[in-house]
Formats: sequence, C-alpha cells, structure tokens
Amino acid sequence: MPEPKHSPATYAVVMAGGAGTRFWPASRRARPKQLLPIAGDTPMLARTIARLEGLVPIERVLVVTSAELADGVAEAVPDLPRENLVVEPEGRNTAPCVALAAFEVHRRDPEAVQIVLPADHVIRPEDRFRSALAAAVDEARDTQRLVTLGIRPTHPATGYGYIRSGDERARRGDWSVRDVAAFVEKPDSARAAKFLESGDYLWNAGIFVWSTDAILSAIRAHAVDIYDALDGVTDPVDLARAYGALEGRAIDVAVMERATNVSVVPVDFAWNDVGSWPSLAEVVEPDASGNHESGGAQVVARDAEGCIVHGDAGTLVALVGVRDLVVVKSGDAVLVCPRDRAEEVKAIVARLEVEAPDQL
Amino acid sequence: MPEPKHSPATYAVVMAGGAGTRFWPASRRARPKQLLPIAGDTPMLARTIARLEGLVPIERVLVVTSAELADGVAEAVPDLPRENLVVEPEGRNTAPCVALAAFEVHRRDPEAVQIVLPADHVIRPEDRFRSALAAAVDEARDTQRLVTLGIRPTHPATGYGYIRSGDERARRGDWSVRDVAAFVEKPDSARAAKFLESGDYLWNAGIFVWSTDAILSAIRAHAVDIYDALDGVTDPVDLARAYGALEGRAIDVAVMERATNVSVVPVDFAWNDVGSWPSLAEVVEPDASGNHESGGAQVVARDAEGCIVHGDAGTLVALVGVRDLVVVKSGDAVLVCPRDRAEEVKAIVARLEVEAPDQL
Repeated sequence: MPEPKHSPATYAVVMAGGAGTRFWPASRRARPKQLLPIAGDTPMLARTIARLEGLVPIERVLVVTSAELADGVAEAVPDLPRENLVVEPEGRNTAPCVALAAFEVHRRDPEAVQIVLPADHVIRPEDRFRSALAAAVDEARDTQRLVTLGIRPTHPATGYGYIRSGDERARRGDWSVRDVAAFVEKPDSARAAKFLESGDYLWNAGIFVWSTDAILSAIRAHAVDIYDALDGVTDPVDLARAYGALEGRAIDVAVMERATNVSVVPVDFAWNDVGSWPSLAEVVEPDASGNHESGGAQVVARDAEGCIVHGDAGTLVALVGVRDLVVVKSGDAVLVCPRDRAEEVKAIVARLEVEAPDQL
Repeated sequence: MPEPKHSPATYAVVMAGGAGTRFWPASRRARPKQLLPIAGDTPMLARTIARLEGLVPIERVLVVTSAELADGVAEAVPDLPRENLVVEPEGRNTAPCVALAAFEVHRRDPEAVQIVLPADHVIRPEDRFRSALAAAVDEARDTQRLVTLGIRPTHPATGYGYIRSGDERARRGDWSVRDVAAFVEKPDSARAAKFLESGDYLWNAGIFVWSTDAILSAIRAHAVDIYDALDGVTDPVDLARAYGALEGRAIDVAVMERATNVSVVPVDFAWNDVGSWPSLAEVVEPDASGNHESGGAQVVARDAEGCIVHGDAGTLVALVGVRDLVVVKSGDAVLVCPRDRAEEVKAIVARLEVEAPDQL
C-alpha cells in the first residue's frame, strides 16, 4: 500500500485590479465594479471570495489590486488579512499580474496549487463551481498541467474568447478533463453560431488552476521577460521600476495559447462576466414590476418595465411610463440611457475626463 | 393748490403655504416648490420677494406659511424679519389666508395698501411687473377698489381661470385699468380658443392689490364667517380653533366673484405659474444640448434632447439617447418619466404614502 501522498495547500489569487468604466456612475476610479454590489447585496469581490468557502480559507486568499484600490478592497472584504493584499505597481494586463501573484505564492508555499480568478463574475450554483474547481485542483496537482475552466455556451456570444476542447484526458468526479485544442479569439456572429452548434467550444472565463511550479515554469518558457523582471524582486521601488517597464499582455496570449500542457474542465453552471449595465438583466431576476434592481435601491414603477435600475442602498428610484432604460443613481451622479445604447457610457466617461473629472 | 395726499404704506403678502406634490421628488413635505430653486438659482419665494424691490421693502413683506414650513421660509429668505412670518394654523385655501394676512396688516398699519401674491410664479421682465403693480397700488389707494392683474393669454390655456375685462376706468402710466366683467372658471379647449380670440379674456394669476380696509370690508360682506372667525383673534390657540373650523375656499370664489368693485389691470409680461415639471420647458431656456436644466445640476447629454432635468447643485446627470423625459435627482430620490406623463407623479406620491413615507 503506497504512502498517502502529501497534499499541497490550495491558494486563491483573485485579480481585483480592474478599473472599468462601463458601470459608471456606480463604478468610479476608487470604487470599480468588483468593489460594488452590482449583482446582489455584497461587493462582487466579497462574493467571489465567499464562493470559495470550504475550498480555500481566507488566510490563503491573495487579492491582487492597485494601491488606489487597496483601501476599498480592505473595506469590501474586512476579514482578509492585510498581508494578503498584493499591490500591483500599475496595471499591465493579466500576465504580469499572474506572475506577480505566482512569485508571492511561491514565497509562501512553493508547493501550493493556485486557483486564479477574476473578482467580478457571477457564478451559480456555487456548489457546482466549487466541485469543478476541486476537480481542477486535483488535476493540476497530479499532472502539473495548466488547467482552465471552460463554460459551455448557452448562446452564440461574440463578446468572449473561446476554448476548443480536445480529447478527454481523465474523469474526476462529475467532471471530464480534456485537452485544450486551441484558444480562439472573439468570433463574429456567424462563427459564434458554429461554435455553439459544434459543442466543442467553450467560453474562456479566465479562471485557471495550476501548481505554482507549473505556472512559473510556463511563464519562464513563454514570457521570459516577465519572469526575469519579477523573479526575486520584493523591494517596492525595484518592483515598481521592473513592473512599469513590462509590456502589458494577457495571460491567455502570453502563456496559455503557447503552452502545450493545458487542460480544460468543461462546466455547465451559469456564468456571467457582467460586462456592462445590460448584462444585469441576465443575472438579476426582474422584480414584480418587471424591472431589474441592483444595488439596494427601492424601485417604484408605474407602467414601467424592462428597466435596469441601480441605486445606492436607501435610494428611491421612481419610474413612470418608461421601457428598457438603464437608470443609475450613485452618489451625486445619475445616468439615464436605453439598454441598447449602454456601451455609449464609455463616451460619457471620456467627456467627463474633461468636463467633470471629479465624477470619475 | 391742494395739500399733497398722505400716501399709505404698501405691504406685500406672499402666500407661501402650499405643499404641492407635482414637483416630487424635488418638492417634499418640508420643502415644497416655493422653497426650491425650480426656475433659476434662488428659491422661488426669495425671487418673488426680490421682484418687489423698490416697491415694498422687506420690512413690509409678510409671508403666510404653515408652521411646518416656517424654518424653510426663514432659510430661503434669511433677511426676512422673523415677525413677518404669518403662520397659518392649517391650510384652508386662499380666502382664510388672505383674511388672516389682512387682519395682520391692519394691526400694523390700518391704512396700508397690500399686494397679495403667490410665492411660486415666474414673471419677466420684472420691471414691467413692478410698473403694473405700481399702477394697481395707485388705483387701489385712490379708489378703494379691489384690483387684480390679468395676464393677456398667449395660448388657449385650459389650466387657468379667466377674467373677462370690461370698460376702461382709468389709465395709469402705461396701463389701462378696467372693470372686471366676470371671473370665469377654467374653460375647455374650445372656449379657451374663443377667449384667446376675443381679446377680452385674461388669465387670473391670483395677484391682487387692495387697501386693507377694502379687502376687510369685502370679506365681511361676502364671507362673513371668515371675517367673524378671525376678527380680533391673535392668541394662537384661539386662532387654531377658529381657523380649523373654517370651510376652506378660494378668495376668488369667496370674495372676488361676488364683489362689485373689482378692477383689472391687463398686463402682457411673461407669466407662468410653473405648475408641473413640463412647465419648466416654458421658463427655462434649453442649454446647448437642447435640454432644460434647473436646480444647478450639471447635465452631460449625448444625443439626448427635449429633456427636463432637475438636480441638486453638485449633481451630475448624464443622458444618453433619450428624448423628452423628465429626469429629477433630489436627495436620495430619482424620478424618470416622459414629459407628457408627468401628471402621473401624483400617483407615485400617493403610493409613497404607503410604500416610502419618509421620501415625501
């Protein structure tokens, strides 16, 4: 009978440095989407960490964020140990972020397996998510491969990258672990329809599981500039200099698409990256009046429906005779916009850079 | 050569007790329309008093309001002597209010001429208004008649009562003073069109000028219950009892329609009683984007026009791709409603009585 294998600890690396503008005016520079209760009663980051309960204790959750957001993160997740905040000197997309976190985990436990995930997604049901992650953790630990979760598409989305899955490598519990045949850029709608039909294509949700050794080896192999820049650097000034000099790129492009040891666990739970105001309609059930409320506002609707309403807790939003609007009240700012034009919020934000920078 | 006549002092009585709901959520119970900067940068009451500059000094301006609004009035008009607040025990429409003020003016100066006017109208240009009032004051003083200003209609409005003017009695400066042939209830649109065409009909703006003796005599003659209830009553408890027992009615109905000594000064300046959100489009010029802003909010519009936007000073309201909406941000409440459905705000307010009374 073999000795029971030593089981390495599991860490979580939550990427929470984003500063998106698409949820303005709820999201501001100092309080982006992941720190807001966009879809539910708690900040998305807090929900993301709570979703790992039983899998990763809070002591082994690292949150990578910017210096500007550090206080907001601490406020959103009060029980997160302060030393578990990993501060990125500046934003350089996900590849440097993953490397920075991997070196930090390595310093804490070189044998650790890491779950790397964005701070601002909605995933349900959460027990299915944990079950899939547990399978991925087993796979990453036993095979030293880079493992990713791939979401089975429910519609021909053109806003996501896709993963084409290959042969099954293993079954772990309920889950099939498969080779990754290819990472595929965001498709046009014709290709997206084909992807959906084929059954082999999965949405790339940016959720990864790997051992610390495996990811550091892969970064050294495929993005050696990042590896060399960050290897052994802990002094903040040195780190800022090294980080600032890096070319920003996504971990998918820098590493995953180049690596040959990538596995995918196809999953079928509900996943949404809540990319803009209209996507709230997908993750927030309509209330009795047929409007989608987020953020804690009280909505009083009279012959109004299909609206997406986000307001600070304690806010009252009264809608009369309107359809399919996005209505946001956050602090001293209000946004009113048809759902199908919400992408133009970016243009408003661009104007505010000049006209009202204190409202960003 | 005759002795120069002693010229009695002119008082102003500003009726500021209203608690309308049509400007919710900007107007609240403790802060109704007249205390708000609905059309301009200053509260409408303050503008109403400032509009009398040179005609009535602030020491002779009485403001009739409710106990609930007394602090708000003092805040809106900080230089108003506190003893010039006349507190109505409760709202009983304008006839008891006029009587209450008339007795108060009589105690201060029995020979005074009074200008009685609502606190919440927009009138431009203000020098023409003062000129017409001065003519009315002369007429009231010299003839002891009840004088009212009648606004020459600019469109066949169905929301106002009308005054049919009769023969000219006198000319005073630029102004003709005419007999009142009749007070006429709000017409339907066909009658309103005829009124406009005839040239004899004027809008009843509820602006009156009379000597204290003349109005008290008229009240005694035509509304003796009011006269008797308030005559000589100054003790607050007695006043509350007497006032509460009165049947509420308008001064037009109780006195003006019955009196036979009423004159009207037809005037042609711009007058607006700003009765609801849509009327702001008539008194607030559109900004460069084609939207009407009130209250001091910054409006950022992208392909949005015809909207009426009211927001607290310091508020930012961003509009994308919307047309002809009323958008109000006031405190913790937001209203979004098409301009042509703004009357339904009343229904929202009725629901809030039950669902969110603290938002009233």
